[in-house]
Amino acid sequence: MTYCLAATVEDGLVFVSDSRTNAGIDQLGTFSKMHPFTDLPGRFFTLLSAGNLATTQAVVARLHRDIREDAETSLATVGRLRDAALYVGGINREMQARYPEEDRPKGFSPNADFIFGGQIGNAPHDLFHIYAAGNFYSPTPLAPFVQIGEQKYGKPILDRILGTKTPLETVARCGLVSMDSTMRSNASVGPPIELMIYRAGIGSSTHMIYDEDNQYLRLLRRSWAENLRQAFEKLPPIELPQPKFRAVES
Amino acid sequence: MTYCLAATVEDGLVFVSDSRTNAGIDQLGTFSKMHPFTDLPGRFFTLLSAGNLATTQAVVARLHRDIREDAETSLATVGRLRDAALYVGGINREMQARYPEEDRPKGFSPNADFIFGGQIGNAPHDLFHIYAAGNFYSPTPLAPFVQIGEQKYGKPILDRILGTKTPLETVARCGLVSMDSTMRSNASVGPPIELMIYRAGIGSSTHMIYDEDNQYLRLLRRSWAENLRQAFEKLPPIELPQPKFRAVES
Repeated sequence: MTYCLAATVEDGLVFVSDSRTNAGIDQLGTFSKMHPFTDLPGRFFTLLSAGNLATTQAVVARLHRDIREDAETSLATVGRLRDAALYVGGINREMQARYPEEDRPKGFSPNADFIFGGQIGNAPHDLFHIYAAGNFYSPTPLAPFVQIGEQKYGKPILDRILGTKTPLETVARCGLVSMDSTMRSNASVGPPIELMIYRAGIGSSTHMIYDEDNQYLRLLRRSWAENLRQAFEKLPPIELPQPKFRAVES
Repeated sequence: MTYCLAATVEDGLVFVSDSRTNAGIDQLGTFSKMHPFTDLPGRFFTLLSAGNLATTQAVVARLHRDIREDAETSLATVGRLRDAALYVGGINREMQARYPEEDRPKGFSPNADFIFGGQIGNAPHDLFHIYAAGNFYSPTPLAPFVQIGEQKYGKPILDRILGTKTPLETVARCGLVSMDSTMRSNASVGPPIELMIYRAGIGSSTHMIYDEDNQYLRLLRRSWAENLRQAFEKLPPIELPQPKFRAVES
């Protein structure tokens, strides 16, 4: 499984991803699912991937090849962010189409999902969820985040904390808490955890990789467990009416 | 959809259920999924249901009929709690078998899942998850709860709070918080919310029904949102290294 999330707020973009892959519970692997493009002049992109590993690698390899070989359309040449998403979605479809439906072994799916976000020049930064079909959408300001993979465990905290005015550091912290809740509940989501923070105004990016024993991640986990317990204990107790008693054995 | 949960702790049992049914997003209904058996001398049972509504109603109707018509095996006659679960599981299978696989329209499934818990005399109280196949398991003391239906959103808080020594009121409050998180994230889980608390030592039960506008439920929701936000704000901030700056446009 996989869990990746990203948020777009006024100050920029935040991406968080896990690194566990599995092909059955006894075949675990560690692969980065965060693919930054930080060396293109005047532009920044990051791609997060979920789904078939062969497809996601093929897509990322093609994106790099198109830049390296000066293809007519590449992440280095597209003029608008939505055109970049369209281009990535098209490559996603192309890589899956190498394995036509009629030739697929039973149970095999080459499908892959992506989160793709970035900024070109001074145009607004944004974020897209790109489906296996190649189509994509950007999140709403009411819930300015996108998740792929194992989404449910980590969604409530995002719903409660994130808004478009949330500072980048807070967004990043919320993303790590969301990731931690997911790892706790689904063993197929695991470290290292990667974090990318992109500050839109000045175009700076920070890429962090937290391994399992990272001191901050452990501190965050302990604090969150303790703070949650306190938050719960402060809740108003239930007022219970008079109970019904069990009938006496006849 | 449905969300039901129950927990078994030293002091007794707690059951929580929502009341929304849906056959497509434009066909919502309100049906109780909590089925208490509180009038049997010397014994107490409660059943929570998820899945095909026709099957769950047929199962509950049969359980009541067997008691009313003094069947040889009924919830009034079984000697052990595991035998009661076996009997309920058998009826579940029987009701589904009315619709043999080869006669089912495409997409139709008569499957139903149950949570079944109770106490007979002074034997230990316990709880079972009964599958569509009729088989069942009881939860572990390490995680003394069972969920059916939409489980993921509400699971993290149960994982963090519940243990076998948790007092019944705390278990109930935790169950309501878990239900509230689920309702927030899945529109097909909805009120009224039912709560059953069974105190094992004295055999007393309390059944509460909270409608959407219930004052306590609203207070709990507001407090939890506020406490969670405070819990989050108290987390240690991320220490970020020097960022990488975007290359200048060439």
